[in-house]
Amino acid sequence: MESRPRDLLVDRDRLLQRLEDLAALAPIPGGGVNRLALTDADRAGRDLVTGWMHDLGLDVRVDSIGNVTGLWGERIDRAVMIGSHIDTVRTGGRYDGNYGVLAGLEVVETLMTAGTDPGGGVAVAFFTNEEGARFAPDMLGSLVYAGGMPVEAAHDITGIDGAQVGEELARIGYLGSFPCPGPAPRAYLELHVEQGPVLEAEGFDIGAVTGVQGIWWEEVTVHGQSNHAGTTPMDLRHDAAYVAAEMGVFLRRMANDLGGHQVATMGRIELHPNLTNVVASRATFTLDVRNTDAGVLAEAERRIMARLDELSASERVTIERRTLARFAPVSFDDSMIDRVEAHARKLGAAVKRLPSGAGHDAQMLARICPASMIFVPSANGISHNPSEYTAPEALELGANVLLSVVAELLEDSAP
Amino acid sequence: MESRPRDLLVDRDRLLQRLEDLAALAPIPGGGVNRLALTDADRAGRDLVTGWMHDLGLDVRVDSIGNVTGLWGERIDRAVMIGSHIDTVRTGGRYDGNYGVLAGLEVVETLMTAGTDPGGGVAVAFFTNEEGARFAPDMLGSLVYAGGMPVEAAHDITGIDGAQVGEELARIGYLGSFPCPGPAPRAYLELHVEQGPVLEAEGFDIGAVTGVQGIWWEEVTVHGQSNHAGTTPMDLRHDAAYVAAEMGVFLRRMANDLGGHQVATMGRIELHPNLTNVVASRATFTLDVRNTDAGVLAEAERRIMARLDELSASERVTIERRTLARFAPVSFDDSMIDRVEAHARKLGAAVKRLPSGAGHDAQMLARICPASMIFVPSANGISHNPSEYTAPEALELGANVLLSVVAELLEDSAP
Repeated sequence: MESRPRDLLVDRDRLLQRLEDLAALAPIPGGGVNRLALTDADRAGRDLVTGWMHDLGLDVRVDSIGNVTGLWGERIDRAVMIGSHIDTVRTGGRYDGNYGVLAGLEVVETLMTAGTDPGGGVAVAFFTNEEGARFAPDMLGSLVYAGGMPVEAAHDITGIDGAQVGEELARIGYLGSFPCPGPAPRAYLELHVEQGPVLEAEGFDIGAVTGVQGIWWEEVTVHGQSNHAGTTPMDLRHDAAYVAAEMGVFLRRMANDLGGHQVATMGRIELHPNLTNVVASRATFTLDVRNTDAGVLAEAERRIMARLDELSASERVTIERRTLARFAPVSFDDSMIDRVEAHARKLGAAVKRLPSGAGHDAQMLARICPASMIFVPSANGISHNPSEYTAPEALELGANVLLSVVAELLEDSAP
Repeated sequence: MESRPRDLLVDRDRLLQRLEDLAALAPIPGGGVNRLALTDADRAGRDLVTGWMHDLGLDVRVDSIGNVTGLWGERIDRAVMIGSHIDTVRTGGRYDGNYGVLAGLEVVETLMTAGTDPGGGVAVAFFTNEEGARFAPDMLGSLVYAGGMPVEAAHDITGIDGAQVGEELARIGYLGSFPCPGPAPRAYLELHVEQGPVLEAEGFDIGAVTGVQGIWWEEVTVHGQSNHAGTTPMDLRHDAAYVAAEMGVFLRRMANDLGGHQVATMGRIELHPNLTNVVASRATFTLDVRNTDAGVLAEAERRIMARLDELSASERVTIERRTLARFAPVSFDDSMIDRVEAHARKLGAAVKRLPSGAGHDAQMLARICPASMIFVPSANGISHNPSEYTAPEALELGANVLLSVVAELLEDSAP
């Protein structure tokens, strides 16, 4: 007699061992991983994970942008897809992306071992170049899969080292024959480390991710006038550094005032001539502004522009602007979010609904099917760093939540 | 019969020609001058000016730090000294320093030509390494002259190119035999371009300089925590760039609040990792804070320290500090300032009393005798730049004010 699939639990040691084995292929000091997309290290990682898919008897398909899908069942368009990525930034951790893919394999193996009927099917996928650390844009594989960019255009992209996506796919043997855009699965789930401090800081075990923030990156250059710091009275200055400072303070005040999930950051500042005793003639700085709510994000942009105009007039400087990025917010499917929250609670987890501040493949798949994500805490919120860490118990809990949601979806689809 | 010396006027064309000839020895593109201290270019400039002193029949003395004095009269300790410097920064203008020395020669030649009795005497001096662009500290020659540093210590100073002051003095033939500290003159006057925008902006012809600002340079390093700009809520940040921004705004508010001659500048900022989407883990910035009033300058320092402490606590960052410079304010002699103002007015000039934001040899001479300075406007306040400019009429007027003050001092000392 079959066990009821919802009572199943993953094998923590097997999951941890796969994480360990995959990390060991491209180690860097401090316990991290360097697996830039479409490098030899990426090929080695792909070969290992694809081998595990074959070992599980999955139907492995490589598409024309190098996304790999291992299908348990008949048709992807009836399957629940579990996905993420295995590429990393140059100084990456071992969990970002990898955890979601290997937890997918763990879920499938657990279901298989228990003799579960796959129903419509379960697919485990890893997408090409999610990080964008070698080729821009990031989330490239899932973007092409979801029809957001023609595959030919993606093949022509040149990376930071001059290599081309299409040539590198062919070189490492992952220029597949399955077409893009790919088939829309019945639903999509992605399990991921939070990459932020919220769950840990607030004492939650699981995040039921409600969507991905919209993002606006603007580069601002202030042209003032270089002057002697000792001889130029305050009211005769055209101080580019002062304008940068006012904007740095304004960002914080504005984010606090808008509240909610509004974040705003000035992470880069460059002054010219950048000397102790010279009033800066030029300041270039960036604004990173994000919100899950498109309306509030637009309001933030409006306020920032108005403040720049005020400062331009009062300090008598000229201001140049250049938009570096602009992505609208993505909202995940309500019923999928509800399922994640309900199953996490049933497993005894303290659950917080929260948006993702970082981009993920799930936001691309959300264009073509009901999607959601499950977050587990990141120690100290650290990610893209060898010291990225999530405790084994937390990794296990996240995988069990994923297993439980997938099992329910399979039961719901059972004839 | 002698003309009354106070009715004399300088020969503008002769003054401009000497400025032209001295500038022509070390030209740089844009009409500027590169005459770093104790270089071959400095030797050529010294030889030219010393030649003019000899032509005028002055008693030329070179001291052990290379200061050159041309004396008309018997004894320096009874003479009125007119001084400045002929070294420049690497991208210097043609007026800074040179104007004061050559106006001194012009004053002496005018008085001589008119048959004036030199009375106690008039000395024209140029001091070694005023700019500090090759050897630190700046104002070295006048500092040693005034007894502020032993000449042996000055000889041992190594410059930015590895050269030593003593060796370079010997190499260019200006290691003189007159001892340092030098004799205190009866009074000291220095005519200089303002190097700031105040006189021009406010429509004044002449500045009667009341003193030299005190200065405090502090380098501050804020240690926060690097975090993802998208995933880290505002209230969980330890943002080093935000603290730098708050201090940049605080400096402006504090300077406006203290009023008077208070200036405060954040001219240098460096962030780490300095990336658009990363909350900065480290910010290093400088504070340049100046005032003519030592008490107000101390109050500014107290407020800045208190604000740094507040920000350290509220943003939960650690703050390191390093003092780069600290000089007390210098006040010039009241009767000398009064004389400058009175003679400028008599010549029809609009006069403003103002402090100097930059350092000058006069502040060293003020340690040993009554001293003051005369400023003429700098176009757009620009200095240390080939585009430094003061109109011929303004240069002439400044030299006539100097002549008039010196002539009065000679009359006052007449037996």
